[in-house]
Amino acid sequence: MYFQTFSQMKKMLGQLNAWLETAASHAKAKSFDPNVYLGLRLAPDQLPFSRQVQIACDSAKLGASRLTGKEAPTHPDTEQTLEQLVARVRSVIAYLDGFTARDFEGAAERVITQPRWEGKVMSGADFLLEYAVPNFFFHTTHVYALLRHNGVSLGKADYLGTLSMRAP
Amino acid sequence: MYFQTFSQMKKMLGQLNAWLETAASHAKAKSFDPNVYLGLRLAPDQLPFSRQVQIACDSAKLGASRLTGKEAPTHPDTEQTLEQLVARVRSVIAYLDGFTARDFEGAAERVITQPRWEGKVMSGADFLLEYAVPNFFFHTTHVYALLRHNGVSLGKADYLGTLSMRAP
Repeated sequence: MYFQTFSQMKKMLGQLNAWLETAASHAKAKSFDPNVYLGLRLAPDQLPFSRQVQIACDSAKLGASRLTGKEAPTHPDTEQTLEQLVARVRSVIAYLDGFTARDFEGAAERVITQPRWEGKVMSGADFLLEYAVPNFFFHTTHVYALLRHNGVSLGKADYLGTLSMRAP
Repeated sequence: MYFQTFSQMKKMLGQLNAWLETAASHAKAKSFDPNVYLGLRLAPDQLPFSRQVQIACDSAKLGASRLTGKEAPTHPDTEQTLEQLVARVRSVIAYLDGFTARDFEGAAERVITQPRWEGKVMSGADFLLEYAVPNFFFHTTHVYALLRHNGVSLGKADYLGTLSMRAP
């Protein structure tokens, strides 16, 4: 289910990019600078919109990288425009496109760490369930919530995207 | 991983209950009625706080029920106070406590439907990844975001909870 989980993240990043496009259209219709979005916050001591997009990207990218050992592209967090954020999301979607189910063999047993954990480690299984997935959805949902709060017209269908439904 | 995913949801609902307790303390410190939270919205055409809590609960409860065939307790969405929302969350945590890994055997192949899908169905695997998990995190994160936006002091550690970290 590791590969499928990251396929779902790839799909969600595609949804997120569609929200950014809707946001750009909204700015155009209202004649305001679309780059204003990048500084929006839900609380003064919460990360701004741009960081929410960047961390959503990183949760997917670094999650896949750490669980497979495949090198990830670097993104120095220098985006200054909505367009640059769209490019960042596209680049992570392209990175996730390069994975197969086989890449995730043994992912559950991998020993995962990252600089801010000060030497401590998690198993791949715990890392996915307790950290990568909750963080990914936390930041994607904050992107969505910030846009909704600021008047961009989005609904649950824009969040979930097309579902794999069929006739019974 | 089905059982582990719902164990993680149970953990997140425990975190959510702690946010509600922090919100109650904040209301007390500021001398306002804690039940004011229930009507808060991030946008006028978005569901209010009370519905975000209720749907977070239902995503976990009905997800587990549909993937196992185990009957779920009914909750008629009549909560009028913060205390009643806490009781609702506790009741879903207690329900999730009753599951074992064995209950989820064959979950991936189950045929899932619900009234609003008008007769269409999803496989259990697609239902979990495309619907239950994204919805669960969407609504839990909206609960968190609404509280943050309204001055309740929460941080990422309150969202993630304790992680299964260990020395290498």
